Amino acid sequence: MENGALGRHIMAEYHGCDPLVIGDKDAVRLLMLEGARLMNATIVTDVFHTFNPHGVSGVVVIAESHAAVHTWPERGIASVDIFSCGANIKPSAALDFLKQGFGAGRRSVMEISRGLPEGVAAELIVKKE
Amino acid sequence: MENGALGRHIMAEYHGCDPLVIGDKDAVRLLMLEGARLMNATIVTDVFHTFNPHGVSGVVVIAESHAAVHTWPERGIASVDIFSCGANIKPSAALDFLKQGFGAGRRSVMEISRGLPEGVAAELIVKKE
Repeated sequence: MENGALGRHIMAEYHGCDPLVIGDKDAVRLLMLEGARLMNATIVTDVFHTFNPHGVSGVVVIAESHAAVHTWPERGIASVDIFSCGANIKPSAALDFLKQGFGAGRRSVMEISRGLPEGVAAELIVKKE
Repeated sequence: MENGALGRHIMAEYHGCDPLVIGDKDAVRLLMLEGARLMNATIVTDVFHTFNPHGVSGVVVIAESHAAVHTWPERGIASVDIFSCGANIKPSAALDFLKQGFGAGRRSVMEISRGLPEGVAAELIVKKE
């Protein structure tokens, strides 16, 4: 990357999600695993759990770093992180797929460089939709 | 939180880390688990793996969300994420402990609100050290 960053970190917020989907641990897990495949990630393992009383939290560990999700079905909100190293990962494929899978009405996507050389300031990029 | 955010996301970058520590999967795992305990997190499970040829990537899934780490021992850099829901988590205790544990010369810490209500813009806060 131009600024010498070793990692790329995408943060997406989905609004207006279907609460029946994002409150279902198995559904969220399958969507995240398929999203990881679509962005060319090599899946190492995954962990998902349900909050009490509702909401799902999970991480897909990929050879190129990780993808994480947290959902609040009572608000229709899902937050997704994709942290990747290497140029082969295409987060946009996963982001598009998850928007459809979550039944989201709207999403906002931000990107920040990680693993920056010392003294290089991180910059938050808000993507236009 | 004041802006209605449901989650708090801390991103820390450590520079000048001891490559023997941050290149050692078991050492990084133990430091992350102890950091999670120090910030009052309830550990659900953890996954750590070593990159080829070097570098460690890992996630500690906590009841309150997750903590992740990625290291580049050849550059002396470690990136840490702490994503938490609820007011009981004290990320600063983990961040201080990890700085010492990684043998880091310097760290930079950023914070961003997650799970924001629709239409509320996320703001990146760079913490002064």
